[in-house]
Amino acid sequence: MSLPPKLDPPTRTLLGPGPSPVSSRVLKALSLPVVGHLDPEFLKIMDQSMAMLREVFQTKNRLALPMSGTGSAGMETCFVNVIEPGDSVLIGVNGVFGTRMVDVAERCGAQVDAVQAEWGSALDPQQFRAALAKKKYKLTAVVHAETSTGVLQPLDEIARLVHENGSLLLVDSVTSLGGAPVRVDELGIDICYSGTQKCLGCPPGLSPVTFNERAIEVIHNRKRKVQSWYLDLSMIEKYWGSERIYHHTAPISLNYALHEALRIVLEEGLEASWQRHRQVHETFVREMHKLELEPAVAESIRAPMINTVKIPERVDDAKVRQRLYDEFNIEIGAGLGPLKGKVWRVGLMGHGSRVENVELLAKALKQLI
Amino acid sequence: MSLPPKLDPPTRTLLGPGPSPVSSRVLKALSLPVVGHLDPEFLKIMDQSMAMLREVFQTKNRLALPMSGTGSAGMETCFVNVIEPGDSVLIGVNGVFGTRMVDVAERCGAQVDAVQAEWGSALDPQQFRAALAKKKYKLTAVVHAETSTGVLQPLDEIARLVHENGSLLLVDSVTSLGGAPVRVDELGIDICYSGTQKCLGCPPGLSPVTFNERAIEVIHNRKRKVQSWYLDLSMIEKYWGSERIYHHTAPISLNYALHEALRIVLEEGLEASWQRHRQVHETFVREMHKLELEPAVAESIRAPMINTVKIPERVDDAKVRQRLYDEFNIEIGAGLGPLKGKVWRVGLMGHGSRVENVELLAKALKQLI
Repeated sequence: MSLPPKLDPPTRTLLGPGPSPVSSRVLKALSLPVVGHLDPEFLKIMDQSMAMLREVFQTKNRLALPMSGTGSAGMETCFVNVIEPGDSVLIGVNGVFGTRMVDVAERCGAQVDAVQAEWGSALDPQQFRAALAKKKYKLTAVVHAETSTGVLQPLDEIARLVHENGSLLLVDSVTSLGGAPVRVDELGIDICYSGTQKCLGCPPGLSPVTFNERAIEVIHNRKRKVQSWYLDLSMIEKYWGSERIYHHTAPISLNYALHEALRIVLEEGLEASWQRHRQVHETFVREMHKLELEPAVAESIRAPMINTVKIPERVDDAKVRQRLYDEFNIEIGAGLGPLKGKVWRVGLMGHGSRVENVELLAKALKQLI
Repeated sequence: MSLPPKLDPPTRTLLGPGPSPVSSRVLKALSLPVVGHLDPEFLKIMDQSMAMLREVFQTKNRLALPMSGTGSAGMETCFVNVIEPGDSVLIGVNGVFGTRMVDVAERCGAQVDAVQAEWGSALDPQQFRAALAKKKYKLTAVVHAETSTGVLQPLDEIARLVHENGSLLLVDSVTSLGGAPVRVDELGIDICYSGTQKCLGCPPGLSPVTFNERAIEVIHNRKRKVQSWYLDLSMIEKYWGSERIYHHTAPISLNYALHEALRIVLEEGLEASWQRHRQVHETFVREMHKLELEPAVAESIRAPMINTVKIPERVDDAKVRQRLYDEFNIEIGAGLGPLKGKVWRVGLMGHGSRVENVELLAKALKQLI
């Protein structure tokens, strides 16, 4: 065969649903010399990353570590470790990722009930109240920032109701972590997973998760083995814990990148990062309004890091996105499912959450729509 | 919390069981600007990597792609996609990875029979003949290069017997691919997985897999869904195929690294790479012999890329490995399972398979043992 040429990917302004722009500091960390997964120096790096993850998740949980896969592997980790066939699970469904959770839970043999809401709306706590009054659930799961719709789900009331039921609470914070408060301990979130390629500003490939002791006890008391060997936390915790028992070869370079990305988030400070995401989001809404592009989500539940705007009827969705790539090197996201062709999804996440990026996009769209 | 300092990992000579040394070309590829997983430019890169993977696997299979996890995720991919509860599986077990395959298959609900051999010996085709004569197996699995023992399993006769039985043949080529012939089509290997961090010279985090049409048909004819959503090839093939349906966010940077690593392997040429691994291995055996360090595996079945040598009784295993780190920045691997404390495992893989590295190690060991 004739070999393909050396890679020369374009420099895009990544304003889609993720990956988000990666800073030069994180890119440099990626190219540091690779060491072994049991190298004493790597073990120190692991401990430091766990400490920083605890800070970002706002938790004292012992178990806070990056799984060696993307956010969806994190989702699967949370279900496979806790669920056994026949277990009852309640899931909030108002977008792609709630729908995916149902699929993942069912593949674990769970009996799944869903609390539904229209895509673009928030889940209604009263529906959780009703469902939880009828049945004892082992696990209740909700998505915090639904990347497919741009809704930031209020969690406080749902968390309270879930705990009254005695159910474990699982929260998907893939898109919110680092860009909006994810108060794991304060809300009593028992299990939480995230991704690296959104507000943490790291390339995709790892999924930070945290489990509290109550959730870990459920894992330790399982009747049968976790159905996934690769995602089995009862083994993985012995590699990330003091035992250092080899499980699989950790993705060293991505762990370097995550370490640097977490340092950047914590240097800025979580509160400052949340505020920046909120302010840039507000600028975005104002700038889009000038172009007659209106938010698809009600103001009170808009996720600041993933913004859906309605596509005007006269505009050719695919053509505009292609021209954004070709003429402006800008990526934005298409709508998914029932929102396909109806909305664009504009990510303003992590290193990409900057007023300059909003201005760049506004200027480009002004020429295209 | 006080932030940890900026990363400054040591520059190790990686002569353990993997990760292997990563060339500067591949490290540079890692730090190229991140693009989106649906970016037209990334889709081209995916196609190119698939073409190069086919070449490295020596196959015309349509499905040849990197799974978004390490080699163990690749192993799990092969079992979860093909196995349904109650299926009969035959597995060769003579080391850690054969043992792991049994565990993974059982978690899929398989009825597993094992062909055993002592750790450090090869599996005996006659035992496969006997087992296959008694029962029809849906899948038979063997490890090509057992990283835990240093055995390179001869495959030809086993492959023939497996096909006479009508069973699918699954081969673990995590450690061998790129460093020894893995002739997927010629041997009729139906399913094969590998890792990036061995003879391909890429950081850990991806697992190349290939399935032929016979194996894919088994996936398409399943009665129930694949138990792992993350590893479900019936969906993943639609992202890597012409449909481009979003499944999960591909680890962009690691895919860049794999692309460059595959270019390097194919630039050298597979035959040349195999020969280099063989020659450096022979130099290693000679040099270790001078130090009275003898191979733990019989000559005819030694894997050239992962070399086990017997630790002399007078030598303190852990102390020598620690001093190799501290005084020479060299990593070698400890023995695992029944070989713990009895052997060292010296990887001479990919970019690390060089006479200079053998000389470095020999010089260091001369001072330490």
